[in-house]
Amino acid sequence: MRILVLGAAGMVGRKLIERLLADGTLRGQTISAIHGFDVVEANFDYAGPIALAMEAGDVSEPAVVNGLVALKPDVIFHLAAIVSGEAESDFEKGYRVNMRGTQNLLDAVVGIQNYVPRVVYASSIAVFGAPFPDAIDDDFHLTPLTSYGTQKAIGEMLLADYTRKGLMDGIGIRLPTIVVRPGKPNLAASGFFSNIIREPLVGRPATLPVSDDVRHWMASPRSAVGFCIHAAEVDGNDVGPRRNLTMPGLSITVGEMIDALARVAGQDTAALIERKPDATISDIVAGWPRNFLAARAQSLGFVAEQTFDEIIQAHIEDELGGSIPG
Amino acid sequence: MRILVLGAAGMVGRKLIERLLADGTLRGQTISAIHGFDVVEANFDYAGPIALAMEAGDVSEPAVVNGLVALKPDVIFHLAAIVSGEAESDFEKGYRVNMRGTQNLLDAVVGIQNYVPRVVYASSIAVFGAPFPDAIDDDFHLTPLTSYGTQKAIGEMLLADYTRKGLMDGIGIRLPTIVVRPGKPNLAASGFFSNIIREPLVGRPATLPVSDDVRHWMASPRSAVGFCIHAAEVDGNDVGPRRNLTMPGLSITVGEMIDALARVAGQDTAALIERKPDATISDIVAGWPRNFLAARAQSLGFVAEQTFDEIIQAHIEDELGGSIPG
Repeated sequence: MRILVLGAAGMVGRKLIERLLADGTLRGQTISAIHGFDVVEANFDYAGPIALAMEAGDVSEPAVVNGLVALKPDVIFHLAAIVSGEAESDFEKGYRVNMRGTQNLLDAVVGIQNYVPRVVYASSIAVFGAPFPDAIDDDFHLTPLTSYGTQKAIGEMLLADYTRKGLMDGIGIRLPTIVVRPGKPNLAASGFFSNIIREPLVGRPATLPVSDDVRHWMASPRSAVGFCIHAAEVDGNDVGPRRNLTMPGLSITVGEMIDALARVAGQDTAALIERKPDATISDIVAGWPRNFLAARAQSLGFVAEQTFDEIIQAHIEDELGGSIPG
Repeated sequence: MRILVLGAAGMVGRKLIERLLADGTLRGQTISAIHGFDVVEANFDYAGPIALAMEAGDVSEPAVVNGLVALKPDVIFHLAAIVSGEAESDFEKGYRVNMRGTQNLLDAVVGIQNYVPRVVYASSIAVFGAPFPDAIDDDFHLTPLTSYGTQKAIGEMLLADYTRKGLMDGIGIRLPTIVVRPGKPNLAASGFFSNIIREPLVGRPATLPVSDDVRHWMASPRSAVGFCIHAAEVDGNDVGPRRNLTMPGLSITVGEMIDALARVAGQDTAALIERKPDATISDIVAGWPRNFLAARAQSLGFVAEQTFDEIIQAHIEDELGGSIPG
């Protein structure tokens, strides 16, 4: 079992590789090699039997991608993308990396005779655009209102058609917003969803730029990795021709997130959140989907957290060594 | 008013240019020039004030498309495409012409500063894939089950995003199956819908490969041209961010089509249709959409025939000089 991970230096990519190294198997087979690729070279502290190779380069260069795929990995995780904000501000770069990069990958696979790898493609709930129903079901139409969402939707279409033609075996997974993201606070419009949990848990203040009744759709980094693994393992016949799946998640308000933080870490921790309404961020967030019925993915065995307490607990276990710093 | 038509030698392209030459105006402005482009050079018998230029070439060559757009036409009709059957049998050519050709056009427009033309994009009901509801509404999701439908859906996504960014002013129109197509019988799976009307009307036999209860969604060539013209003229503000519209049409069974033929041209004419069931064609047609609720397009003023008698009448007027040959 040889595995290629595009986007190996990203948050989900890194955690996925760590999980694969720990598991040692995928699809019931022993992993012999993991090849990671990203714009910057990822580093892992690993000493074990799996041949681990990291490489840096540009996914928008067809020759580069052809070279990666020429090794005929059994499973390819395509997580590489310019993020939403940058794809919106740098139109050309977003299309070059997110759309052409994905086309390059699929065409590289097609270019090899009798080679039909499982390709797990990280899509996004950004493929959906307002106005939304109360909960977006599996038949809701794709009307992205951002360039990032458009690029992801195009990747979904290609993945489904190439798979239908038997040229690859693709599964697209529409990830919820990932909370709690580890690391430093960032300025992404969605950053506060993580900041207001991660920072108070280590005794630092955090700013909440939206009102408590803002509802959003989220899952933990641990669930995101689980989605990738399950997407690599799920039986394609069970998925059928509609290869792109909205992943399960938790629909919850900011107020409910804060209540959960108070339950898990105490009222003093929750009190470190300062409410400082920001009209720009509030407007952006108002255009995001809030709730889904991810029935197909759930029936196929994809699982996410049921409560925000679990999401906080996963963060404490995975990032804080299992307990809140005293 | 300068106009560029990509796909000028196709059935709809030719009729659109003839209509524009006859009208002499578009969007309330006098047409000064029409530039037609296709893989083969179209020919028109025209002597009048409009500068008419026809050119042959390959829409999948960026430099060629850049050259066409460099003349800064006010309205671009993009009707050029490899048809469904060929896009399915020649995977590479379908993507090269239908997807990359469309990308080339949009990128050529973006490449010119301060240039925001109205781009009318011919899409297709092939963007939808089974299973279908009884009637497909404007919010039904795009899950194409052919490469052609995938390529058209990707064009729709790009058109919407480039328009949202203010880089062009696009309107996508999902055309019904066009009936009655003039010319010779063809072997396209959908060809019989036209054959069973066109051939008997001139005293020739025609073969019906499916059962009488097969339902389909259609409009006349005259309506298709009308959709293009109206798409060039409709106010973009009224359309809003969802730039791709399912065109109105007529949902009718083959049996009802034959009844209409008997009403318009007599029982003897309808008797020229020979029923010869073909399992392959029946299976293909079973996967096609049968009925739509084209509410958005109708509210925006797009109109199609209400009865099949009107569709036959349009054919008699436009192709047979106004009367059935005796």
